[in-house]
Amino acid sequence: MFNKDLYKHINEEFIPFHKILGIKLIEMNNGFASFLIPFKPDLVGDPRTKRIHGGVISTAMDAAGGAAGMTTLGSEKDQISTIDIRVDYLFPGKPEDIIAEGTIVKDGKNVIFTKMNAHHPESKEIIAEGRAVYRVKRFEDG
Amino acid sequence: MFNKDLYKHINEEFIPFHKILGIKLIEMNNGFASFLIPFKPDLVGDPRTKRIHGGVISTAMDAAGGAAGMTTLGSEKDQISTIDIRVDYLFPGKPEDIIAEGTIVKDGKNVIFTKMNAHHPESKEIIAEGRAVYRVKRFEDG
Amino acid sequence: MFNKDLYKHINEEFIPFHKILGIKLIEMNNGFASFLIPFKPDLVGDPRTKRIHGGVISTAMDAAGGAAGMTTLGSEKDQISTIDIRVDYLFPGKPEDIIAEGTIVKDGKNVIFTKMNAHHPESKEIIAEGRAVYRVKRFEDG
Amino acid sequence: MFNKDLYKHINEEFIPFHKILGIKLIEMNNGFASFLIPFKPDLVGDPRTKRIHGGVISTAMDAAGGAAGMTTLGSEKDQISTIDIRVDYLFPGKPEDIIAEGTIVKDGKNVIFTKMNAHHPESKEIIAEGRAVYRVKRFEDG
Repeated sequence: MFNKDLYKHINEEFIPFHKILGIKLIEMNNGFASFLIPFKPDLVGDPRTKRIHGGVISTAMDAAGGAAGMTTLGSEKDQISTIDIRVDYLFPGKPEDIIAEGTIVKDGKNVIFTKMNAHHPESKEIIAEGRAVYRVKRFEDG
Repeated sequence: MFNKDLYKHINEEFIPFHKILGIKLIEMNNGFASFLIPFKPDLVGDPRTKRIHGGVISTAMDAAGGAAGMTTLGSEKDQISTIDIRVDYLFPGKPEDIIAEGTIVKDGKNVIFTKMNAHHPESKEIIAEGRAVYRVKRFEDG
Repeated sequence: MFNKDLYKHINEEFIPFHKILGIKLIEMNNGFASFLIPFKPDLVGDPRTKRIHGGVISTAMDAAGGAAGMTTLGSEKDQISTIDIRVDYLFPGKPEDIIAEGTIVKDGKNVIFTKMNAHHPESKEIIAEGRAVYRVKRFEDG
Repeated sequence: MFNKDLYKHINEEFIPFHKILGIKLIEMNNGFASFLIPFKPDLVGDPRTKRIHGGVISTAMDAAGGAAGMTTLGSEKDQISTIDIRVDYLFPGKPEDIIAEGTIVKDGKNVIFTKMNAHHPESKEIIAEGRAVYRVKRFEDG
């Protein structure tokens, strides 16, 4: 069984680039995970519009897809890594916090398919949607 | 005509998130652009392997594809934005600098197709490859 | 306004490759479209499993995404064409009919984003999911 | 070791949908494979332009990527299947034969990355480019 507190610590403190971004794990349970990207000026892509950079959004989406995949792991030795990711940028967003959500679409033995989206906390308008495929090595067998 | 020095300044100093990453524009000419990602600990994805995070790499690849597209712009009023990006992660890389290159595959009136790759400066091994499509608004007519 | 009967005729009779596949337009309305792929031996990908070939499924998914996009057209002169498509193959399916559905995710002036899926008529198990982006030329203005 | 004649027979005669399309295996060797799509009216996407349908092209591209992957198989029991495919449609093409080529980008233990393109035999203009990832089950061990 995965331990959400452990993964929260890993995602927020142990991964240096996540720490620079300041992303926070909100949920991680049963094939689903979400991250908050708190708005800060360092993350802006264009100082005229002050919106968060697309690269920050896609990083958090990949993190959310990966964390969704991690909820299927049975052992701390198991490993997961991104095979490929596709992100569609639908709306440019506003200079506000963003939530990135990832959901497992198919949990296979060696490969996990996920879909992701990003939106502002109080809005249903989707800023970006994507899909990613993860490679998983499962060591537990029993 | 685009002005490389201007775009170098925009990419390295004006875009806050690029400044945080520390990426440097190397080349930008005739449908091609490349960025250097100088290695630094803040960009690491996993402190055990000390490799640069995939999100940094895909951000630099998107920047390189976009900059390649910008070489086709005829006016400073022209705009370019990412429609979608797809990244395949081929090799995990080493804790070293990375170069991200973008090349135009088709330069259309409203849409530009690009391909990108990422590799270490002294290596032919490809860390990641990708493709992105950009929306372009061209104001000059002539 | 689009005319569903006209598009049904175009999709089933006028497009030679659709006629070979035998796909039938089921619905086409308000940003959504679906096609039925009636099972027939010619469409099989592997004679051992007798499942419909992935290329048939992705063709019908592209047709469904495109037809969803066509519901936004205002004139018969308007044109739509596929920029790019991504298909994830989740489950291999059974030797049965398949329904391909397409839904608009964002309807832009020049670009339409869609998502698609494919499943057997009586099953919720998703055989394939995908995303496609379409270029649209709208001639009506008024 | 793979046997090209066997795979040629499988691809052209054994797979019903390939037989309907009429695609022919040209080359298959050392991480590369190509298929010819001989022009015929049944494959047309739009009877006004008489170009081959995009779904035919992407099917042949997937076949080429998969055949490139098969050149790495060591046993007839090994299996390969498409995880995901992405196709960018660059130019609409002409009512002529098309060649689809697939090349391995990375040959992993469980996953093979490929890139593909489609063009007319006498032309360097690329009609479509794509990438696909394949799942591979290798039974030989030795």
